[in-house]
Amino acid sequence: MVLHGFLTIGKRVMEKTSSGNFFEDFEIGSTIQHALPRTVTESDNALYIALTGDRYPLYSYAEFAQSLGYRRELINDLLVFHTVLGKTVSDISLNATANLGYAEVLFLRPVYPGDTLRAESTILGKKENSKSKTGTVYVHTKGYNQYDEVILQFYRWIRVNKHYPDAITEWDEKPEMPSEIRIEEYQPPTELKRTGLNPAITGGKWFFEDYEVGERICHTDARTIEESDHMQATSAYLNLNNMHFNQHLMAHSRFGKRVMYGGHVISIARSLSFNGLENALGIIGWNNSTHVHPTFGGDTLYAWSDILEKKDLSGHDDLGALRIRLVALKNLDPTQPGVALKFMDPEKEKEQYHPNVVLDLDYYILMPKQI
Amino acid sequence: MVLHGFLTIGKRVMEKTSSGNFFEDFEIGSTIQHALPRTVTESDNALYIALTGDRYPLYSYAEFAQSLGYRRELINDLLVFHTVLGKTVSDISLNATANLGYAEVLFLRPVYPGDTLRAESTILGKKENSKSKTGTVYVHTKGYNQYDEVILQFYRWIRVNKHYPDAITEWDEKPEMPSEIRIEEYQPPTELKRTGLNPAITGGKWFFEDYEVGERICHTDARTIEESDHMQATSAYLNLNNMHFNQHLMAHSRFGKRVMYGGHVISIARSLSFNGLENALGIIGWNNSTHVHPTFGGDTLYAWSDILEKKDLSGHDDLGALRIRLVALKNLDPTQPGVALKFMDPEKEKEQYHPNVVLDLDYYILMPKQI
Amino acid sequence: MVLHGFLTIGKRVMEKTSSGNFFEDFEIGSTIQHALPRTVTESDNALYIALTGDRYPLYSYAEFAQSLGYRRELINDLLVFHTVLGKTVSDISLNATANLGYAEVLFLRPVYPGDTLRAESTILGKKENSKSKTGTVYVHTKGYNQYDEVILQFYRWIRVNKHYPDAITEWDEKPEMPSEIRIEEYQPPTELKRTGLNPAITGGKWFFEDYEVGERICHTDARTIEESDHMQATSAYLNLNNMHFNQHLMAHSRFGKRVMYGGHVISIARSLSFNGLENALGIIGWNNSTHVHPTFGGDTLYAWSDILEKKDLSGHDDLGALRIRLVALKNLDPTQPGVALKFMDPEKEKEQYHPNVVLDLDYYILMPKQI
Repeated sequence: MVLHGFLTIGKRVMEKTSSGNFFEDFEIGSTIQHALPRTVTESDNALYIALTGDRYPLYSYAEFAQSLGYRRELINDLLVFHTVLGKTVSDISLNATANLGYAEVLFLRPVYPGDTLRAESTILGKKENSKSKTGTVYVHTKGYNQYDEVILQFYRWIRVNKHYPDAITEWDEKPEMPSEIRIEEYQPPTELKRTGLNPAITGGKWFFEDYEVGERICHTDARTIEESDHMQATSAYLNLNNMHFNQHLMAHSRFGKRVMYGGHVISIARSLSFNGLENALGIIGWNNSTHVHPTFGGDTLYAWSDILEKKDLSGHDDLGALRIRLVALKNLDPTQPGVALKFMDPEKEKEQYHPNVVLDLDYYILMPKQI
Repeated sequence: MVLHGFLTIGKRVMEKTSSGNFFEDFEIGSTIQHALPRTVTESDNALYIALTGDRYPLYSYAEFAQSLGYRRELINDLLVFHTVLGKTVSDISLNATANLGYAEVLFLRPVYPGDTLRAESTILGKKENSKSKTGTVYVHTKGYNQYDEVILQFYRWIRVNKHYPDAITEWDEKPEMPSEIRIEEYQPPTELKRTGLNPAITGGKWFFEDYEVGERICHTDARTIEESDHMQATSAYLNLNNMHFNQHLMAHSRFGKRVMYGGHVISIARSLSFNGLENALGIIGWNNSTHVHPTFGGDTLYAWSDILEKKDLSGHDDLGALRIRLVALKNLDPTQPGVALKFMDPEKEKEQYHPNVVLDLDYYILMPKQI
Repeated sequence: MVLHGFLTIGKRVMEKTSSGNFFEDFEIGSTIQHALPRTVTESDNALYIALTGDRYPLYSYAEFAQSLGYRRELINDLLVFHTVLGKTVSDISLNATANLGYAEVLFLRPVYPGDTLRAESTILGKKENSKSKTGTVYVHTKGYNQYDEVILQFYRWIRVNKHYPDAITEWDEKPEMPSEIRIEEYQPPTELKRTGLNPAITGGKWFFEDYEVGERICHTDARTIEESDHMQATSAYLNLNNMHFNQHLMAHSRFGKRVMYGGHVISIARSLSFNGLENALGIIGWNNSTHVHPTFGGDTLYAWSDILEKKDLSGHDDLGALRIRLVALKNLDPTQPGVALKFMDPEKEKEQYHPNVVLDLDYYILMPKQI
């Protein structure tokens, strides 16, 4: 349809909307209190289960959580993570072109339905990138509950666009990022009493002692994610980046379509991993999370877990930490012959991730020992 | 597959199902108590957020609502509207061919999670249309809470099919519809204390004084709506008109597909409008809402707000009313050059809405002043 | 993309994941306590409404339920059924190739938001099938609340794969399955007071006396089900069978796509049946449920009800039981001429279900009498 004779609109377009911070805007040492704290409820857990298929009973069975010493069922730890991260998006990553890495993501306290979560971030450093169009910003984020207790913290670095791509800023302050969680210092939630665990509830046969370093668990389940599913989840996290929601815009991107929020891929992989890790009592944290390739609506996600390390926890002889590489693949069953995390590319003469791998998460879970 | 040899079914098909009221059935002056009151809960808010991306903290952050004088977070005002309207559908608009207009839509009291909403409608008038196949019915609807307090009211007129299109009824009672909300008589909720507002919570920088009549705010966000999204939302509102749900039927309609419930378009536009109107403390009401063109699953919605008027509220020197034209467009970014609400059609020699405009809502919001 | 030079993975793939029980594994007389009890909440009801369009006020209107003698609104009875059945899947039917039948499905006590549901199943018998690849397993399942009261029970028999299809087991213990609910022994919930029913709430005009044996009610509404809708619902029921979720796998099945969980078809049909059965006070139980043909994402479901029997309930002169055949069809409006449940296939010389029929449910509902 050809439109002609447009009226001029005769209106000043005002800049009342926020388009987020650019590289130049971040001030090293400053702390940003993010807007939009959120009361998380049992409804958010219910919706999370519908959108991910998560089965861990700690988040859906009140009496089970109570038998472990908690007041009632908990808010799913990844829902806590997404809620806290979601708050930072409008200040930190609205102009990000890449999420470069995480370090020392640590879940510090249980979150209950009815708690209100808020987030703050400190800018630790920033460094202009070589071609000067963008820069890397290093951030430390803390999530708090309504009692001002820290319930989650993480380091994160992202590549952010500059306002003025051609003006060289010479910012070059790259802070030291923690390389790994100091697992020997980690303490489980004080409420947690492993003795209350009844494995007939979880259906799990395996405890800390049963897992072996080097072992691979191919989780049998898989899940196809529709556009509605990931958009509803990402809306629930209040992470409203256009790349996840705006098909009209993303049709002209290099992907040609909306990209699923990487955190939701973690959620799906974690939910699939229930089959084989049923007795896990929550996520301790992660060292890093690599979003290897993008995931799109219509993709089917599979997952495997590689047991990387087994760590005792000082002062807790009935609990241990399993360090796991959780890998998610799209549209490929990992039990098929020849599937590997990486392969040697003979042309480039270096290792590459398998093209169907979408997530490589190096994380710790809390696993009860036999008693 | 060819079927032959059908058995005759030998059953009387009884008329136990309701097919709604036709033009002849409405009795002027009568009041209909609509069926299916509904207890609205925090779950409905959570689902609403997942389906719309709404970020206003009044509906998702208990302590923020309390700081403003409310008991706890409120049920989203548009969720209240849809719930009340949804109840009227089976009595009023099941045989409607068009929603012709609204007048004096007014939100009168806050609704809390756990409240039960019911609705009643009074038939104010009806007028047979010139070609006699249909008639216009004028209705006044009130929504109540469980304490029999009116929480919402609106006037509405709709084009309704006749039972007997060829029998002339000569009904010609067209009542006066209020042309505009009498904003000078409007009183905000008695609980509301603007002084408690902390703009660090909303993330909003702008107050009543900052908005200028004539200003346009192009909200940066956009949202693609899938069939699942609008059907789930419209089911939650218990508005089960087949045109929103039955693809098998609508494939043979002039659209060839399901049509999104117009109220859900208002919800999406309102949710998008958060970016630029963060400090808004709820909707006062609207003068009219024109659903310019239909919206379908797969469409991407954008929105802008034109500030039409600024009104003081008598007895409230810390609050004002902003009259806004909220415009939703499908599949067109309103910041593109040449986008206008209407254009002059040289053939028809009159103004037409831009073909991508789907909603033109003339409404008032409550906006705090600087203190 | 051609991959070459794969690294060998050098990891032992351990069998920590559960792949469910096979025919040989079931021990007659044994009772399985199923894992993953679940606290069901008002959020689950809200989500259920969004995903099915269910309108029965007993599950969404607190004061209505109270007027009938209940403490508050109930958890939808089909949501109770799916939750209990969902728990049995990983032990009973992960290797099932067909759900052959149900008998004496009985809802025994109301379930409230906040209750925790668990399930146990007793193996009643098993019988190797003639071609020896599979066997039929007969199970009796009970659902309990947190007070160890039975809230639901049912018999079910399924065709299950064998571990070793070529090894003949000679198991041939086929127990007697109840042919029908003994409706004369049925007692409604003790809390229920029919006198409190206000038909203005339900919008229903019809009571027990108004329904006639032989009558057919074609429910006017219909609903198209998207992949997201049935996957979200089935996730909420924690029934994570790959056939409902894994498009990548099911693309190679004889269907070429995911198959909707049959129980969700019952839910949709039951929700559609509100129009004409508005005063129903819940499901008593069912004699059998035949899932005639599979349903897929994108299908539009219609439903009709045939009144099969009317039964008085001893000791309750204000309540009766209606025995109904609830039929769901896909992509066919049952009010079209020539639509029948079955037709005579002249080639096979026997009756066949109409190819668009997907569900034939022989069930009882509790219907109030006029007072």
